[in-house]
Amino acid sequence: MLRRNFLKGAALAASLVSAGAVAAEGESYTIGVAIPSATHGFMGGLNYHAQAAIDRLEATYPQLSFVLATAGDAGKMVNDVEDMVATRNIDALVILPFESEPLTAPVQAVKEKGIWVTVVDRGLSVPGIEDLYVAGDNPGFGRAAGEYFADKLGAGDNVVVLRGIPTTLDNERVDAFEAALDGSGVTILDKQHGNWNRDDAFNVMQDYLSKYDKIDAVWAADDDMAIGVLEAIAQAGREKEMWVVGGAGMKEIIKRIMDGDPQLPVNVTYPPAQIATAIELTALGLVSSTPVSGRFIIGSQLVTPENAKDFYFPDSPY
Amino acid sequence: MLRRNFLKGAALAASLVSAGAVAAEGESYTIGVAIPSATHGFMGGLNYHAQAAIDRLEATYPQLSFVLATAGDAGKMVNDVEDMVATRNIDALVILPFESEPLTAPVQAVKEKGIWVTVVDRGLSVPGIEDLYVAGDNPGFGRAAGEYFADKLGAGDNVVVLRGIPTTLDNERVDAFEAALDGSGVTILDKQHGNWNRDDAFNVMQDYLSKYDKIDAVWAADDDMAIGVLEAIAQAGREKEMWVVGGAGMKEIIKRIMDGDPQLPVNVTYPPAQIATAIELTALGLVSSTPVSGRFIIGSQLVTPENAKDFYFPDSPY
Repeated sequence: MLRRNFLKGAALAASLVSAGAVAAEGESYTIGVAIPSATHGFMGGLNYHAQAAIDRLEATYPQLSFVLATAGDAGKMVNDVEDMVATRNIDALVILPFESEPLTAPVQAVKEKGIWVTVVDRGLSVPGIEDLYVAGDNPGFGRAAGEYFADKLGAGDNVVVLRGIPTTLDNERVDAFEAALDGSGVTILDKQHGNWNRDDAFNVMQDYLSKYDKIDAVWAADDDMAIGVLEAIAQAGREKEMWVVGGAGMKEIIKRIMDGDPQLPVNVTYPPAQIATAIELTALGLVSSTPVSGRFIIGSQLVTPENAKDFYFPDSPY
Repeated sequence: MLRRNFLKGAALAASLVSAGAVAAEGESYTIGVAIPSATHGFMGGLNYHAQAAIDRLEATYPQLSFVLATAGDAGKMVNDVEDMVATRNIDALVILPFESEPLTAPVQAVKEKGIWVTVVDRGLSVPGIEDLYVAGDNPGFGRAAGEYFADKLGAGDNVVVLRGIPTTLDNERVDAFEAALDGSGVTILDKQHGNWNRDDAFNVMQDYLSKYDKIDAVWAADDDMAIGVLEAIAQAGREKEMWVVGGAGMKEIIKRIMDGDPQLPVNVTYPPAQIATAIELTALGLVSSTPVSGRFIIGSQLVTPENAKDFYFPDSPY
C-alpha cells in the first residue's frame, strides 16, 4: 500500500508522457507543506521561497493544489500535519520538522498511510521514514569559505572564526573550513561560539579586537553573526584592516557584495530556497514518472560581486 | 563568469515567480543531452527515459529546447559535446560520460565557458567539475535486497549470490547485502562473478546447482543475470525449490512480478530513468530560481506485486 496515491500519479503521468502530452487533465493531487513560522531571518526566507514555489507550480500544473501551514512550535506542527491528512486528503507531505523528536512518530504515521513524505533540512529521529530528503551541504559550506580564504591569504596572515551553536552541523562546517586552510600558511588566531546570534557575535568580536592587533579576515560563518561582527569592527574603527565572510545569503549582505563593498567580498550559500527544491521535486514525482526518491544535498556556492545579483531576492524578508 | 547563461535564467524566472506567473515568455534556453547509445538493455531504457523527459519538458515549457546526442564510443561523445557548444550554443549540458577519463577534459572545457554541467551515474575523473551530480544508490540497492532476504528467510536457509563485474560499485552493493543479512541466521553458500552477463550467470548458476543440494533463494543482483539464473534452474528442473531476486527493473521481470510469479517475488530498482531526474532538475534550474546544484542520490526501491505496475514501462526497450 506504500505510495499508493503517489504512484497512481506516476503511472498516469508515464502514460501521458508516452503520448508526448502534458498531464494537464486527469487526476489532481494535493501537496501539504509544513514549515516553521518566519520567526527569524532564515525561516523568513524559507517561508518566502515556499510560497514562491507553490505559486510557480500552481501556475504551471493546474492539476496540483497545495496546503501550506506554518507553526511556531512542534505541537502546532503535529496538529497541522494530522489535519492535512484528516481533512485535506493530501497525496504528499513536504515537512521541515520544527524539532526532530516530536515530529518523528506523526510523520511516520503519515508515511504508513501510503502518503509520500519529503523531509527538509532537519532529519527525523528515525532514519528511513522519508521517501526524499533535501538539505544543505554543511561540509561544503565550510570548504567553500575556506578555499576562498586560502586563495586570498597566505603565510603571515591572521584569521578569526566565529562558531555557531555547538552542534554536529557546526563541527562539520568548521572542520571543513580548517581543512581547506591546511598548507596555506594562514594562522587561525581564535574560534569562539557566537551561536548564530547577532549580539553574541558582537561580543565575541569585541573580545577578538581587544586581544589581537593584526586580524586580516573574519570568518563569521553566518550573516546574522556577520552583522554583529561588522558593528564591533566599526566601533573599534578598524574597518580598513580586515574583511568579513558571513554565510547563508541574507539579502542585505548580498546587496553589499553586489555593490562591491570591500569589507564583504563574498558570501557562501546555504539556501533557504532549499524548501523550493523539495516542493518542486515532490510535485515532479506527482506530475511525471521521474524518480524523485532519495537524498539531494544542495551544494553551497560562492557568491561574488559578479554573480551576486542571481542570489539577490529583494522581495524576500531574508 | 561561471554559470552566466544559467543564472541569467534563474534571475529572470525569480522575477516572474514574484509576479505569480509562469516563465512562458522571455528568454529561451537550449539544453544538450549526451548519453551512450542503446547498445544493451539498461542503456536502451536510459535512452527511452531521456526522450520521454525531453518530450514532457518541451510540452510543459515552450522556452526550452533540447539537443539529444547518443554515442557508441567516447570519441563520438567528445565530438557531440564540442558540437553542442560550437554550433548550438547550449546553456546547460546533461551528460552520462561514456568513460570517465576521456570525457573529463572536454566537460571541464564546457564548464569553463560558463555553461551549467550535470553529470549522471558515471563520475568524471576530476571531482568538482559538475554543478549537479545525479546517480543511483549502490549500497541502498544491496541493502533493499538484503532486508527482503532477512525478512523472508531465517536460520537454516541457504542463499547463493551472483556478483557483477569486479568494481567498487559491485563491492558496495554486495557489502550492503551481506550487512543486511547479519544476525538473520541465513547462510550465504557462495558468491561468484556473473559479470552482469546472462551467459556468465547461467554458467555460475549451473555450477551452484551441481554443488548445492539445498538452495532457498538466489540474489542475482541484476535482471540480465536473473534471466540466466532462471534458465539454469529450469534446465535442472528445480523451479519449485528457490526464488530469485534480480535488480534494475527490466520490464519482462517487472511484468512477472506484477503477475505474481512465485519464482520472482520482488525486484530492486536502479532506475535508468535517473537520466530523466537529471534532465528535469537541469531544466528546473533554467525556468525557476530553485537551487539545483549539488548531489542527488536516487533511492533504490523494493518492487512488489502490489506496486509493480508503477515500475512497468511497456514501451521502453528495458
